[in-house]
Amino acid sequence: MLKFEEQKKLDSVNGALAIRSEIESIVDEICKKGYKNICWLGIGGTYASCLQAEVHMKERSSIDFFVENAAEYILTGNKKVGEGTIVIISSVTGRTTEMIDGVKKAKEAGAEVIGFVDYADTELAKMSDHLISYPENEQLKFFMAADRFMYNAGEFNEYDELYAELDEHLARGLVEVEKSADELGESIARKHMNDSIHYFVGAGNQYGATYSYAMCYWEEQHWIRTKSIHSAEFFHGMFEIVDRDTAVTVFVGEDSQRKLSERVAKFLPRICGNYNIIDTKDYELIGISEKFRGHLSHLLMRVITSRIDVHIEKLNCHPMEIRRYYRQLDY
Amino acid sequence: MLKFEEQKKLDSVNGALAIRSEIESIVDEICKKGYKNICWLGIGGTYASCLQAEVHMKERSSIDFFVENAAEYILTGNKKVGEGTIVIISSVTGRTTEMIDGVKKAKEAGAEVIGFVDYADTELAKMSDHLISYPENEQLKFFMAADRFMYNAGEFNEYDELYAELDEHLARGLVEVEKSADELGESIARKHMNDSIHYFVGAGNQYGATYSYAMCYWEEQHWIRTKSIHSAEFFHGMFEIVDRDTAVTVFVGEDSQRKLSERVAKFLPRICGNYNIIDTKDYELIGISEKFRGHLSHLLMRVITSRIDVHIEKLNCHPMEIRRYYRQLDY
Repeated sequence: MLKFEEQKKLDSVNGALAIRSEIESIVDEICKKGYKNICWLGIGGTYASCLQAEVHMKERSSIDFFVENAAEYILTGNKKVGEGTIVIISSVTGRTTEMIDGVKKAKEAGAEVIGFVDYADTELAKMSDHLISYPENEQLKFFMAADRFMYNAGEFNEYDELYAELDEHLARGLVEVEKSADELGESIARKHMNDSIHYFVGAGNQYGATYSYAMCYWEEQHWIRTKSIHSAEFFHGMFEIVDRDTAVTVFVGEDSQRKLSERVAKFLPRICGNYNIIDTKDYELIGISEKFRGHLSHLLMRVITSRIDVHIEKLNCHPMEIRRYYRQLDY
Repeated sequence: MLKFEEQKKLDSVNGALAIRSEIESIVDEICKKGYKNICWLGIGGTYASCLQAEVHMKERSSIDFFVENAAEYILTGNKKVGEGTIVIISSVTGRTTEMIDGVKKAKEAGAEVIGFVDYADTELAKMSDHLISYPENEQLKFFMAADRFMYNAGEFNEYDELYAELDEHLARGLVEVEKSADELGESIARKHMNDSIHYFVGAGNQYGATYSYAMCYWEEQHWIRTKSIHSAEFFHGMFEIVDRDTAVTVFVGEDSQRKLSERVAKFLPRICGNYNIIDTKDYELIGISEKFRGHLSHLLMRVITSRIDVHIEKLNCHPMEIRRYYRQLDY
């Protein structure tokens, strides 16, 4: 299978799950001393992950939490951020300027920062009051933090049960999903490698995936134009430009907002002949209880779409590492 | 000037400003008895207006307020909505199903509803605890409500000064802006009438305008494909697909996030030869103090873009009233 290192993938997810004890001790300490609210702070792809954590918590929690885009926060501010605010960030490079300035501002306002920063020797890592340094698996890290906060607030009694299943089965489960999605990935890649524009539609914890997959993968790494739209909004304007040949992919997840995407998936065939429905429900996840699948469906989607990526990369002879402008120019 | 009824426009804005006394008595009564938080509830175009109210308040206010998309709220819920929540909605038709179901759920949770519903004899109007029925001017209505809440919270001392200026000068000012934007509107319409895709970029209270102008005007009413993106996010993926011929329009406003759009506007000429910068600062607004312009720049943008609309409509022989699917089919 193209660009697929099974053991590396297993190790990556299992390693991420293993940092849970670190997360727990940090979150438990914060909960013990008390906090006012949680601010998920991001930009670009990490902003999308914040949106996923937000919808995940919204379904369950009375904790006061919210998402801020770092660049907006720097200029507009947010009076909710202050003493007692826990800012949660994620960064690979640790040197994204908007994140550095945003974290600086939040800390000046009195906030405490939990930083998932892949490299410990970077500015964002140094600015984090609580640093957790482990590569990749951003959403899993965010959800582990969110889940622990909710568990401590008495809002997530299935915490131990869930993580026992994940520790045992998630890494293998995702690898098996990825393998079984390879054929679909190749067929979508072949069908859409020349698209002039591709629409991605999703909801719930898939919305962040929809937004970032369109922007951070197709636009940024494949140089293919996209639009992403929330399934709830699809029927309020955007669908007027869909016709027989319009390329549309719907991400259907298994959380509380599944119905919104099902509605799009059901309607599309009446007006469009060039769509794909990717439904995480079609993929087995051995050892994981049905009730937890909604919780995880964005992780399934990510490994499924990664199969589209490797095939588009090969078919379009366009290495995903290259950037036209990003960090190539001053802007 | 094409499709331009000056007196009607003056009357429309002045009439909207005149409902301020109604808004004040409703909001003052609510503030007197106390409330917990404010939920701006919308979908599609009204969701975009909610986003504008949110960023407007965020710049100034410590009130607990947030935005909910009605369709998402119905399924995912939001534990912040309950006794003491003031839900603010706007609807022209009063019969959008997601809004009806969303308001129903919020009321069941104990919320109180301020409804700006154009037609009083509709379901959403009847569900509103406080109904204000006046056509159009959605953003102005929302901002008047937001401003009164902030004024009562001691966060907006310039309230009287601002509205004295608006009552006296806003309607005439917007009409003059619209007239002076006609030439720009026609030139943008001619340049882009055949676009296969058009990108709109904006920030601050222009972001809602960017999102809804792309979706509710170009997609829904002109059947031209678009993508809208927040100026903060432009540099985090999307800009990789911009090249010499990519059609991009940047909305530059005058509020706290002006810098984010200026950054895009400054960078674009290096990589693109097919862009437009619409900067509200280029338009005079006689009688309005400099310090209030940021507050109003989304209203200026709306009258400016309306000149693009009337020209595209004529050039493309595509009446803006027609819909392919919206309310033509069951979905």
